[in-house]
Amino acid sequence: MISYEEALETILASVNRLEKTSVSLDECTGWVLAEDVPAASNLPPYDNSAMDGYAVVGRSVAKAGEEDPAVLAYLGDVDAGGGDRIEVREGEAARIGTGAKVPRGADTVVMVEDTEFREENVYIFREYATGSHIRMAGEDYVKGEEGLRAGTLIRPAEVCFLAANGVTDVPVYRRPKVGILPTGAEVLPSGEPVSGTKIRDANGPTLMSLVRKYGGSGHHLGIGPDDEEKLIDLIGENAPNHDALITCGGISKGHHDHVKDALVKAGTRIEFWTTAIRPGKPFGFGKLGDTLIFALPGNPVSSFVTFEIYCQPALTKAMGCTPPYREFFQAKLLEDFPKKPGFTFFVRGNIEGDYPDYAFRPSKKQGSGMISSLVKNSVIMIAPAERDLIGAGESVEVFRI
Amino acid sequence: MISYEEALETILASVNRLEKTSVSLDECTGWVLAEDVPAASNLPPYDNSAMDGYAVVGRSVAKAGEEDPAVLAYLGDVDAGGGDRIEVREGEAARIGTGAKVPRGADTVVMVEDTEFREENVYIFREYATGSHIRMAGEDYVKGEEGLRAGTLIRPAEVCFLAANGVTDVPVYRRPKVGILPTGAEVLPSGEPVSGTKIRDANGPTLMSLVRKYGGSGHHLGIGPDDEEKLIDLIGENAPNHDALITCGGISKGHHDHVKDALVKAGTRIEFWTTAIRPGKPFGFGKLGDTLIFALPGNPVSSFVTFEIYCQPALTKAMGCTPPYREFFQAKLLEDFPKKPGFTFFVRGNIEGDYPDYAFRPSKKQGSGMISSLVKNSVIMIAPAERDLIGAGESVEVFRI
Repeated sequence: MISYEEALETILASVNRLEKTSVSLDECTGWVLAEDVPAASNLPPYDNSAMDGYAVVGRSVAKAGEEDPAVLAYLGDVDAGGGDRIEVREGEAARIGTGAKVPRGADTVVMVEDTEFREENVYIFREYATGSHIRMAGEDYVKGEEGLRAGTLIRPAEVCFLAANGVTDVPVYRRPKVGILPTGAEVLPSGEPVSGTKIRDANGPTLMSLVRKYGGSGHHLGIGPDDEEKLIDLIGENAPNHDALITCGGISKGHHDHVKDALVKAGTRIEFWTTAIRPGKPFGFGKLGDTLIFALPGNPVSSFVTFEIYCQPALTKAMGCTPPYREFFQAKLLEDFPKKPGFTFFVRGNIEGDYPDYAFRPSKKQGSGMISSLVKNSVIMIAPAERDLIGAGESVEVFRI
Repeated sequence: MISYEEALETILASVNRLEKTSVSLDECTGWVLAEDVPAASNLPPYDNSAMDGYAVVGRSVAKAGEEDPAVLAYLGDVDAGGGDRIEVREGEAARIGTGAKVPRGADTVVMVEDTEFREENVYIFREYATGSHIRMAGEDYVKGEEGLRAGTLIRPAEVCFLAANGVTDVPVYRRPKVGILPTGAEVLPSGEPVSGTKIRDANGPTLMSLVRKYGGSGHHLGIGPDDEEKLIDLIGENAPNHDALITCGGISKGHHDHVKDALVKAGTRIEFWTTAIRPGKPFGFGKLGDTLIFALPGNPVSSFVTFEIYCQPALTKAMGCTPPYREFFQAKLLEDFPKKPGFTFFVRGNIEGDYPDYAFRPSKKQGSGMISSLVKNSVIMIAPAERDLIGAGESVEVFRI
């Protein structure tokens, strides 16, 4: 039985980034950029006006004032996108809108609020420093400058840069295809009526939701029977078409637990089969060809927690993210939490209070079958293996679920 | 000109939650539940084993020990999901796997690790309290108990509850359809070659990405011309098919700014047209029929910021979320931030350090045309209107972008 840290390290060492592909600008949010994207041209592409007003030569307005306005000859309008026809000389003014290219000769924009238009002349009632209200070409990005780096998760901000640079086919890493295979003769698809000793498949839809949340595409492969031969076939058929295969249930010491044997006989190289954590001690990991194999326990909370702590970082690495693969934060523990040493505990609970007084309140119900411990809580605390008591008031590490 | 707070209040007062619909369990992650979902049955549905081991009567093992094991007659296996055929009496033991229904008569499960199997007898080398390792029917949820409440954002945890309760058509609020209409004669679609005074449409794809990020479905309606009549037609055609229409650009005081007139002539009731914020002072809001109308400024940063602070809460309310509509947190400002009083500033920057020493470093580039101020930063600080200086060391409110 290996530690949480060793298990995670083993898993991450086995994960390769998926190959490059491309998606459209409309699709790329939430994908990871696979190539550096430098600035394709200056941004802004040309000197342009930061205000609605008049483009002038700075000398024309350097001494203007309330009592002694500058009176400039109106030359016409600079149309946004309409061309470069106007040239402004000293004593002249061209009307200009925000974002429009500053016409030749002009080096200053005066705000419309400081002007009056009378009989084809523009009166300017305030002095302006040369260069006012002009956004210089390249002040945001100079052509060729570093823009976005490979490994960047694409947010709306990155979409803005890509669009401004004309990148409509966005180079990204492919996202993982994940097969989900809950097992157990007692498990029926969630929509079917249950009675007697049957239960509904809660794990399959939950794992599908988790895969989707973290950017993969999940495929529910149906419910695997408690039959080694049939499991071998299901694993052998599906592993080659997926980047990861997640089984659920059938992996502890019961007489109907065939998943480990089936995985091995299907050709899986098992790396480890239990880790020193609670919930979720029975959790296996290996590879079948290039496919990551995760064997999760069947209890809903155990399967949820082992996905969050082991599968999520693996899938996030596979889709091209750079570490850290998940965001942790600190909170103050509100009550003593006694625990069995030697096991890392993943404790469901809630955050109370606001920064800087975030506090973590562990849920009373911590059983590995307690779906309410997921529904009624928003974070999980990591209680380190070596400790036998985390004391009230200590700072603890938590992550959101 | 109204304040940020007043503008946001006006917008939210105009937003109605969208109607109910339903989506499949596979699709529902990230949608908002539209009805309370109580527990449909007890969870777990029956008393079941928390361990792999043997189901026994508690009295049979109350005095077992290393030197004096209890010796019980092996009755057979309890198959998970296989039925209720076995009854256990004192002096007997039935093999049972984790999750399997406890057979009639049994009230205790002993772990397989504490047993030996010899000649059809089960030897038990440890005393057990009656009730050990049994999960009681209904200990997680009792039938009819409150489960999920309407207004809950569906995470994987809620999917687990829904699946366990057999809810495969999930009642949710419809998500908003949002039309995106960037305007300006100088704006070309992002993929087209640009030269002279033309620029690429950065705002359209960015707004599409923002709408998607916050759960809506965006439709880019093309680029609106600087022509009032054509804009009136575009607005009139598209408003009735969308829950919100977002225009971008053409709303300040320039001579080519036709958006306000076109919106009014198309029938929009304008609520306000500027708000005391930076960036993004020119920002209009109104309604055309039931459609929310947001008129955003054309500078990329102004359009991004006004979406985040005004459109996001509106869309989040429309899709059924309960307040707060966005998560803010606190950080310590690292350097003095002087500002013009009377305006709420939205300052791009980064978080440095870890909890509890989160600190906010404002970006040097704060211009409303600076795409780099979005790309190179991860949070926005809200600098209140009444202040003229936020001092280094003060606690400030920020949100992630």
